[in-house]
Amino acid sequence: MYRTHTCGALRLTDQGQEVTLSGWIQAIRKFGAITFMDLRDRYGITQLVLGENLKETLERESPGREFVIRVRGRVVERSNKNPQISTGEIEIAVEEFIVLNPSRTPPFTIEDQTDGGDDLRMKYRYLDLRRSILRKNLELRYQVNRVTREYLHQQGFLDIETPFLIKSTPEGARDFVVPSRMNPGEFYALPQSPQTFKQLLMVSGLDRYYQIVKCFRDEDLRADRQPEFTQIDCEMAFVEQKDILEMFEGLIRTIFREVRGLDFEGSFPRMSWEEAMWRYGNDKPDIRFQMRLVNLKAPQGAYPSFEPELQHSPLHQKETGFRVMDEAETVIALVVPGGSETSRSELDLLTDWVKRPQIGMKGLAHLRFPAAGPPKSSFDKFFTATGLEELARFSQASPGDLVLILAGPEDLTRKAMAELRIRLGQNASLRDPDQFRPLWVVDFPLFEFNAESGGWSARHHPFTAPGEADLPRLMAPANRSPVRGTPYAHPYYQIRANAYDLVVNGTELGGGSIRIHRREVQERMFEALGLGPEESSRKFGFLLGAFDYGAPPHGGIAFGFDRLCALLGGSESIRDYIPFPKNNSGRDMMLDAPSPIGETQLKELNLRLNT
Amino acid sequence: MYRTHTCGALRLTDQGQEVTLSGWIQAIRKFGAITFMDLRDRYGITQLVLGENLKETLERESPGREFVIRVRGRVVERSNKNPQISTGEIEIAVEEFIVLNPSRTPPFTIEDQTDGGDDLRMKYRYLDLRRSILRKNLELRYQVNRVTREYLHQQGFLDIETPFLIKSTPEGARDFVVPSRMNPGEFYALPQSPQTFKQLLMVSGLDRYYQIVKCFRDEDLRADRQPEFTQIDCEMAFVEQKDILEMFEGLIRTIFREVRGLDFEGSFPRMSWEEAMWRYGNDKPDIRFQMRLVNLKAPQGAYPSFEPELQHSPLHQKETGFRVMDEAETVIALVVPGGSETSRSELDLLTDWVKRPQIGMKGLAHLRFPAAGPPKSSFDKFFTATGLEELARFSQASPGDLVLILAGPEDLTRKAMAELRIRLGQNASLRDPDQFRPLWVVDFPLFEFNAESGGWSARHHPFTAPGEADLPRLMAPANRSPVRGTPYAHPYYQIRANAYDLVVNGTELGGGSIRIHRREVQERMFEALGLGPEESSRKFGFLLGAFDYGAPPHGGIAFGFDRLCALLGGSESIRDYIPFPKNNSGRDMMLDAPSPIGETQLKELNLRLNT
Repeated sequence: MYRTHTCGALRLTDQGQEVTLSGWIQAIRKFGAITFMDLRDRYGITQLVLGENLKETLERESPGREFVIRVRGRVVERSNKNPQISTGEIEIAVEEFIVLNPSRTPPFTIEDQTDGGDDLRMKYRYLDLRRSILRKNLELRYQVNRVTREYLHQQGFLDIETPFLIKSTPEGARDFVVPSRMNPGEFYALPQSPQTFKQLLMVSGLDRYYQIVKCFRDEDLRADRQPEFTQIDCEMAFVEQKDILEMFEGLIRTIFREVRGLDFEGSFPRMSWEEAMWRYGNDKPDIRFQMRLVNLKAPQGAYPSFEPELQHSPLHQKETGFRVMDEAETVIALVVPGGSETSRSELDLLTDWVKRPQIGMKGLAHLRFPAAGPPKSSFDKFFTATGLEELARFSQASPGDLVLILAGPEDLTRKAMAELRIRLGQNASLRDPDQFRPLWVVDFPLFEFNAESGGWSARHHPFTAPGEADLPRLMAPANRSPVRGTPYAHPYYQIRANAYDLVVNGTELGGGSIRIHRREVQERMFEALGLGPEESSRKFGFLLGAFDYGAPPHGGIAFGFDRLCALLGGSESIRDYIPFPKNNSGRDMMLDAPSPIGETQLKELNLRLNT
Repeated sequence: MYRTHTCGALRLTDQGQEVTLSGWIQAIRKFGAITFMDLRDRYGITQLVLGENLKETLERESPGREFVIRVRGRVVERSNKNPQISTGEIEIAVEEFIVLNPSRTPPFTIEDQTDGGDDLRMKYRYLDLRRSILRKNLELRYQVNRVTREYLHQQGFLDIETPFLIKSTPEGARDFVVPSRMNPGEFYALPQSPQTFKQLLMVSGLDRYYQIVKCFRDEDLRADRQPEFTQIDCEMAFVEQKDILEMFEGLIRTIFREVRGLDFEGSFPRMSWEEAMWRYGNDKPDIRFQMRLVNLKAPQGAYPSFEPELQHSPLHQKETGFRVMDEAETVIALVVPGGSETSRSELDLLTDWVKRPQIGMKGLAHLRFPAAGPPKSSFDKFFTATGLEELARFSQASPGDLVLILAGPEDLTRKAMAELRIRLGQNASLRDPDQFRPLWVVDFPLFEFNAESGGWSARHHPFTAPGEADLPRLMAPANRSPVRGTPYAHPYYQIRANAYDLVVNGTELGGGSIRIHRREVQERMFEALGLGPEESSRKFGFLLGAFDYGAPPHGGIAFGFDRLCALLGGSESIRDYIPFPKNNSGRDMMLDAPSPIGETQLKELNLRLNT
């Protein structure tokens, strides 16, 4: 028997008991003839005391850090108690000491603050996972998993497994494929998501489905993307958008309560995509702080009607003489509350920041609106004091504020200002890591125009239903005309999707939609996306076929499980929450995978390398 | 809103309530001006009554089987109650009838006894899954999933995800591989099991791991094998064999209790591999019935010592004149209790059966041992009456029994008799589907000799530890000699593995082992399996490395989840318990996968087809 107790179990009440413990040596301290050791396992740390009786054993075995040992001894009260750990009131007076497995000196220290670099820790991931900080991440991940399953079970969902060897279909990203030996020249694909299967399960009448499931995307990896990732994948039949939002608001609420002890007050706010884009410059706004974007040059009538005070942009069709503004497609302002005294050097830093290639702006203008006295700006000579004050007021600044202004092409400028906003919020400590602000973003556009191909693509995926009111726009034969001139004028551009994203603190945690469930609508959708009847039937025939036999109205959602765990754990990096992650080239540094395979295996697969 | 209640919810106590239901039309019955419909969803069936008021609607919509509809109406008491269904006391007097989606006539009937053939049902799997028999299978599968998770949670196991894109290693079967676009010429492999990862998690100190996880094997498919299948995969640190057997006996006990309402009395019996092979002819005996095999020609001393009465085989080195017996390597007897009156035609059927190519025997001899009178056999002329009785007695027959005898090459004959035993048990209704007899089979051989390659392979896998007592046999340098002559004489043949299988009713439900945790033992094992130091380091360097840094003693087990569900559900076929199975050529008939991929995609993967 290796142990009677774990290293986290013993208390003062166990005093006098004979126990056997096994674990790793975390630390060794010698005081004359007495040796103290910290023995570690998953459950805690227990102090061992080894006296004269074990002198010879220790000399023979010369144990060191990370040796695996088994000891037998008696629980005694510690004179020098350690209130930091649960076993801190006792220690074990060791009578028998056995080395189960020795250890070489680890390549880095097994401590929360380790001296190991990223690559080294990835290579020795099995040692990295010994650090309590990472172990706790995996425990948190398991807790989220468990709370999720419990909630969904209570709500009548069934965990139903969908296959991994499926059919290659263009669902946005590139598929990983798997050559079939038994069907030469043919390939399976690994699922980017179980999308079509969960829809088929609804057609089967299974009503409420979920899965915590691996998905695969062969994308060029950016920081914090993984070729394989985990989703909480859900689908429901006979539901409308509001049913889904309520159900999964409940899930997120339960997870935050159980895992973080946090209760959200009231319903999660809902914001249209349009509002998010105008006010925050992107579709996943961090609403822990305000600081909204104001477009100073929007054409008459462009601002949506929920912004009555912004309808008459001061720079629209106005020649100021300031070429940067006059020639820019867009001029966007952002107010820093109480920032009118911001130092020149701070402004210079921000200017340098927006000029970085990742942001790509040419410069940053500013306008100080002091508590007393006239406004001062970096472009004073083009404006009167009244003109400057008008600009500041329109930007929604009050006396004492600073207005920052970016000018340039529409998309780039909006994106840059959205990122500047996040940076300013970060600088001003407005992004409190212990505060969580969930938000539903709804009413996304159904289509995106792809300028390169001249065609439309699905913003969410090809199975997303248009909003009820916009369905006629999709079905109208007259609207099938190709885009001529600006895509914004095309009727497709106006179609809103019955889709929704859950955003927390500027992170998109999940998204979903009500699906198309009628064959003629799905066919119309494929057509709009440029898939001819032959192609759509070859690729999605099974789904179109399923719609012929009584498909119910249905919809669903999927959450990024890795990201959800990272958010709950307070980390920016999903890798810290994945047991065996891959690096940015998609390599597993520990396994050294991928790797070449033998000629025989290639031949069996009917393949040759293109060398 | 689509529904206020499901189709399984309403009772007599709801009488008078206005409700909205949605679902599928299961059946339509017209009685004059009144139409009855059965409305079905996942939760049940509710009867609808449509009167005169809906005559026009019905004429306009002409609803049929499998139409998806929504109705609003009032709950009324049924005059003609149906005690078969939970909603059988009420019906809905429909006021509003809306077709949500029409349906074509399904290609087969959505009934437990369907008229659809296998291929048709696989192609329209989404309709097949509407049948309540299959829905219940998936519900049972979910229940097993849930009970498993709950038990393992209570025992302190963590569900930890392991990667799917891993490294190709020869672990027995062939790997499915995934070409890497970002690392040209290199491939990932899909895991045959998370074996090495779960061992690394033990090295990480995570102590108790589990996962319900998909695994992949590119094997030539036999009936009831799937290229992707699901395992309950578990591993524990600081354990010996008995700890694991107890822990997972508890799991299986809990599953049978929760899912089938069955309690097993006492501990699961344990049987050595040797006993299973001698007594039942294979390593997964169905012990619901006895009928043991007796070897009539075993050499002196070959029978293990637990069979004292079988030490002197009557046919060993004896010339009977009956060439079939005299020339055969092995002669095996099986007693059919009370079978002495078995008819000639029944015996002919059994003879034909053993002569089928799948069994491959040349014939079947028999010996009747009547309650009164002398024995009679199909080989009377070679034996005296005393000789026949001696043969019958040695076979453990009593008066009134029948002895069946097969003769031929050792392996073939034993296998044939094991299958004949199962068939006879089946014929005699000794394989009660409601009786479950679990059995641990232990002490497997560590190695198998591969006559073709002249080398040894691992019977379980290369990470299985030898039994404590047999470790020196593995490590002894003298034993590294190649096999000369019979492999049975080689010391490796005697090494027992610290491995165990759980067998229930003749089905192997799971298996596992205590693992090697010391580098020098693992290296020795690789060497014995013919892997040179360079190859073993290239393929398993990460695991050998991990053993350098304090690997704890550990072991684990994995259960075939699909098979466990089938067993619990009382089915022979795992396909009925897999939502979207593949056929025997590894094809998904519904998706029509695998399928060709485009030239561009191949090129990106740096591959060409071998045409």
